[in-house]
Amino acid sequence: MQTRRRQIEDVASALFSHRGYAATSMRDIAKALDLQGGSLYAHIPSKEAVLAAIVEEAADGFHAAVRPIAEGPGTAAERLRAMIGAHVGVVTGGRDRAKVFLFEWTFLASERREAVTRSRAVYQGYFERVIGEGVAAGELEAPDPELAAVFVLSAMNGMAHWYRPDGRLGPDALAEQYADLFLEGLQARASLAHEGAR
Amino acid sequence: MQTRRRQIEDVASALFSHRGYAATSMRDIAKALDLQGGSLYAHIPSKEAVLAAIVEEAADGFHAAVRPIAEGPGTAAERLRAMIGAHVGVVTGGRDRAKVFLFEWTFLASERREAVTRSRAVYQGYFERVIGEGVAAGELEAPDPELAAVFVLSAMNGMAHWYRPDGRLGPDALAEQYADLFLEGLQARASLAHEGAR
Repeated sequence: MQTRRRQIEDVASALFSHRGYAATSMRDIAKALDLQGGSLYAHIPSKEAVLAAIVEEAADGFHAAVRPIAEGPGTAAERLRAMIGAHVGVVTGGRDRAKVFLFEWTFLASERREAVTRSRAVYQGYFERVIGEGVAAGELEAPDPELAAVFVLSAMNGMAHWYRPDGRLGPDALAEQYADLFLEGLQARASLAHEGAR
Repeated sequence: MQTRRRQIEDVASALFSHRGYAATSMRDIAKALDLQGGSLYAHIPSKEAVLAAIVEEAADGFHAAVRPIAEGPGTAAERLRAMIGAHVGVVTGGRDRAKVFLFEWTFLASERREAVTRSRAVYQGYFERVIGEGVAAGELEAPDPELAAVFVLSAMNGMAHWYRPDGRLGPDALAEQYADLFLEGLQARASLAHEGAR
């Protein structure tokens, strides 16, 4: 049963990711699974329920990967670097599911959509908070930690559109370079601010 | 006639942007325009032709805004800052059209899709080239100009998902902050490299 559900979600993730949620029917999902349309309903009550399951599981994956790092030990820069690695790992580790979570969640019906909106805000908050802690410690400089968090999250989420497992750079190299691109600016500003204060 | 086409494209952009191309029918477009399905075909031959028109026009908009800056005078950092301003301006100036161009173009049939792929590569190339020129001039440091271009373009393109005209920050402020976030890292590395060389 559990395996069947996972199989349904995998197939649905691929269809939602490539065609979009709105253009995929329960019949399409059933067909891709070689099932009769009707027997799919024995496993899942509706298309939206499959979307909700995919989105909630993906959200759990992002939170579980990033939250312990955000709340763990280390300087802000160290934690942000590890958080970028974790986020890139989740995006590249399951591109279809990540893409559905990142870009198709808006098709959820209002109650679930509100819950996902809250969960996304909490998630973005991990990045905002650690950036803010780095600023407070004089380690980083960012006039607008919220916008800086949106900036780096958007940059990473773009990978869901273009990442290929057979591409020139693997997930670790990509994460390392993205962390450099993001952090060196925040760190440079902080040292300039210190220079100025001397 | 020209106005009618523009009206059709505006309505189609909004529908494609909100529901996705695949989930929007010619009937939906006609209905939103208060037209009979059949009379829409007097103006446009197919749904894909509308998508193609929107995508090509949007692509022209991005190229026309950014290319003259990339090829114009100024240091690499100055040009990149202005290019970021121009790109953010196009994204925020017509969010629906930008969103269709950025995320729905993959639904074009293969010939047109290949043309758009080439056009996108040329566009990304403006950023890559100016970053590379900055590196060559010792003004910027970026071990991988291609990836740095993808990074900043993805960050900006994310705005097509979240930008609201009534939001906290306008297009100019957003562009300014994104340029700071991106450029200060590249500039900081270059000064570190110079320090090391002294």
